[in-house]
Formats: sequence, structure tokens, C-alpha cells
Amino acid sequence: MGAVLAGKILARRIFPTRGLPELRAAIGQILQEVGWERPEAIGVGAPAPMDMRRGLILHAPNLPHWNGVNVVEELRAAFGCPVFLGNDANCAALGELVFGWKAQNFLYVTWSTGIGGGIVAGGEVVWGATGQAGEIGHIPIRPDGPRCRCGKIGCLEALAGGAGLSDRAFELLGERIPAEEIIERAQKGEAPFLNLVEEACKAMGQALAIAAELLEPEMIILGGGFTASWGFLGPKVVAALNSLSRVQPKVELTKLGDDVGLLGAAALPLHFPRL
Amino acid sequence: MGAVLAGKILARRIFPTRGLPELRAAIGQILQEVGWERPEAIGVGAPAPMDMRRGLILHAPNLPHWNGVNVVEELRAAFGCPVFLGNDANCAALGELVFGWKAQNFLYVTWSTGIGGGIVAGGEVVWGATGQAGEIGHIPIRPDGPRCRCGKIGCLEALAGGAGLSDRAFELLGERIPAEEIIERAQKGEAPFLNLVEEACKAMGQALAIAAELLEPEMIILGGGFTASWGFLGPKVVAALNSLSRVQPKVELTKLGDDVGLLGAAALPLHFPRL
Repeated sequence: MGAVLAGKILARRIFPTRGLPELRAAIGQILQEVGWERPEAIGVGAPAPMDMRRGLILHAPNLPHWNGVNVVEELRAAFGCPVFLGNDANCAALGELVFGWKAQNFLYVTWSTGIGGGIVAGGEVVWGATGQAGEIGHIPIRPDGPRCRCGKIGCLEALAGGAGLSDRAFELLGERIPAEEIIERAQKGEAPFLNLVEEACKAMGQALAIAAELLEPEMIILGGGFTASWGFLGPKVVAALNSLSRVQPKVELTKLGDDVGLLGAAALPLHFPRL
Repeated sequence: MGAVLAGKILARRIFPTRGLPELRAAIGQILQEVGWERPEAIGVGAPAPMDMRRGLILHAPNLPHWNGVNVVEELRAAFGCPVFLGNDANCAALGELVFGWKAQNFLYVTWSTGIGGGIVAGGEVVWGATGQAGEIGHIPIRPDGPRCRCGKIGCLEALAGGAGLSDRAFELLGERIPAEEIIERAQKGEAPFLNLVEEACKAMGQALAIAAELLEPEMIILGGGFTASWGFLGPKVVAALNSLSRVQPKVELTKLGDDVGLLGAAALPLHFPRL
């Protein structure tokens, strides 16, 4: 969370997402820190199914305190300014459009514990009918594959997300190993981990190829924790992408690092779609 | 091909696509038929890779006479009016947007010998960086599947397009059987054909689920020859879609029948994107 003015982050705060009272308090502290009486506007990027038009978080499996909360009404009442809600990965794509690579046609992918995505086409974010577009983590690429935490079968996230990778290792070895360690041990050439990581990279490359054929983006931009190991993962992903897609967009890492989501949420009030 | 005024088709002509001279002659005949000296504008929908910005057909595997032809310059020189070139399935999506279902977020799919697609997001066609977006027929959904006529492995079209279905039957039975007959014999319950058609419908449903998670469309609209058997195929496709996607758009047939592409091409001059 942060205070942003004309694309510059004036103050920021990272805190565990609990309920509304904690969020209101944190916004209050940030305002004090930068000496603002109230914000011009608030943009919220949330990793949850939502009704963007109504400003409502629908059911947030990872954020139980936010179930059914109308973030827009609550924060508008508390801070007396316009409030806008969007999907976090779509906000990141908006951040990249406004402050980062500024391409007119691209796919943004967060590769982390989960996998999120945002699409920009013709210089506009593709939000979808209610704000749920871009869910590349939940495209079904292995109908006979493992079950995803979302309940469906064979989602990209189940194969290549950090949690999914950890689940796959557990099935294989009966041991809970974090994704970072799986990648590290794969890099050292330990066979079961190398296989898992190569499978994950193939799945990611296939998903990017699918998106490339559907969207013909100029580029694909990646962010999220896995990009820390991009030197190891990137060539595997790009090889799979290029073998499965006729469209071969360039693949780059975000220009905005961990700030991409924050900057995107800050841009949301000026770029909110007519839904 | 046809003459269109304010969404009404005044005259039309169906003829085998040969080279430019034949096309120019056919346009001349249509103009005579409707008594126009020259058209206000010409929109061309072509089933080929293209550079939409330059008006150039790149390499047309099924249309060898059009390889490297700059349709826009040639027709502008011949008829003295603005000319616009777009992908045929993207034009069909535009037709559906302007004259058909008029939804703001949808996927249009032509299911025929090949499989084409067009995307509308936020009331605008997603053309892609150079006009190649929407290629749902070539999304790789079975990396270990059959080779597609495009050269890649496991494209939707190789599994569910008419030519692909016919290829699959040939591999199985050593006999060339047209897709129409395969569907007919599947409907009568003949086992190898029923299996092939069920596989095709599952593949189509999976591809639609992928597009639904990526784009969150309000609806998916289908056109093309396979829709003649929609009563048989539709329930199988929709069952696969709904089991693999959290987003469950309604699925409908085009409102414009075989005219969807013609009407879309006619709308192209007024809806051509800034690329």
C-alpha cells in the first residue's frame, strides 16, 4: 500500500491483509506520513473474484475477512473520495501500460505462489465482463492433470505455481518443500526437482503460447517471485513458447519490480473502464 | 462478396477465391448490379496471416495466389476508394458486434473445416499487434497430440476442425471420410465416429474454457458449418466448457448466419483500429 503522486511513490507500507479496520488505519497512517488531509482517489487491487462494477469482493479463498465486503463503499465512506476496485494482476498490467514498458498489446503474468495475469489490447486493459479477465493461472491445459486449489482440473497454476509445485513435490516425495528450495535444488541438478521445474516451465510456455495465439501481443511481461530465478527458468519457458506458437512476442521482466501492482492500483482511478 | 449499405446486403456473390483480376472483375459486376459508380469504401476479410497495417497478405497456405499481395493498394488503385484488410474471423466478430448480438465482451468462433476466432473486449475488437489475434484454432491444447496442418503440435484445429477430424478418421480407418459424414455417423451411434466427435467436442470445450478464463466474456458466439449439427454437438461442448471454467458465459449461435463475415468486412472501414 502506498501514497502515489504522478507516478511517484511518496510512502509505502507492507502489512498482512486482515480486515477493513486494519486497512483503514493503515491508510490513515500513510496520509499522516505524507501530510495529506485526504486522498484525491483510492485504487485497490485485490487478488480475489469480484464485481468490479459494484466494488464488491465476492469470495476470497485466501482472504476470508474480505468475503462479501464492498471495499468501494466502505473506503468512500471513510475517506470521502472516489474509490475504485480491480483485480490485482489486471492492475499490474495497467501499471506496466502507464508507467512501465508502455506497449499497446501485451500480456502481463505474475508468477509466484499463484499465477495471475492481465491483458492489454489496443492500449486498453481487458477487464472482462465484471473484472475477472486475465486469469491465465486458471486456464485448463491438462484436462487429465492434477487438481488445482480452485477446484478445477489441470489449471496452469496447479502445474507451475509455487503452491502447485510444492504440492507436486509432496506427492512425489511425501515432504513439504517450498517452491524456492525446489528451484534451487533443480538448479543444482537434483533429478526429481529438475523434472518438476522443467514440467512447470513447459506448462508456463504452453500457456504463454496459447495466450500469444489468442491475443497476438507485441510482448509478454513477467513479474512475481519466480522471476528472481529467470536466468534458469526463462530459457526453458521461452523455448516451449516458441515451439508452440506462431506468434513469437518478446518476453521481458517487469520494469517496475515489486511496485508494479501498487503503481497500477494508483492508476486505476484515471483508467477505470465503463462496465 | 457483396454490396452493403447501412447493414443491408444489396447484392452478393459467392465465387472461388482465385487471384486479383477475378476479384476486381467480381467487384465491378457487383457495382454494376447495384448501380454504384464506385464504393464509398471496401472492407476485405481474408483467412490468412497478414500485416493489417500495411494491407498485405503474408503467406496464405490455402490461397497461393494471394501470397505477398497488397490487397489494400491494389484495390485502392482499381476503385479509387479507401480499402481496409482484416482477418476474416476478426471481421466476423466485428459483424456480430455491430449487427448481431451486440455484446460488449464476447468470443466469436467459426467452427468449420478450420477453426477461426475473433475477440471483442470492452466493445472493441481485439486485433492484436498486426491483425492476427483471435486464433483459437491454433492454441496448443495437446502438446503430445497430433500435428496440425499449420506445422505445430496439438492445436485445437487438429483435434476439432473438419480437416483434422477427417485426418483422425483416416489414421484410424485408413479411409478419407468428410467431417459431415463423420458427424452423421456419430449421431447414429457408430462407435469410432462417436469417439472422434466426443474428443473433438471436449477439445472445443477446453479451448472455450481457456478463452473464458482469459477474457471473461459475457457470451461465446459460434458460426460455421459445424453449427448445423449444434443440437448434437452443443451439449457436449458446453458440458466440457462448464467443467473446466469458473467463468460460464452463455453460448449462442451467430445471429447473422453465413452473412456474419460479409457484414463484418463491410463494417471494417468504420471500425478500423489505430495500429
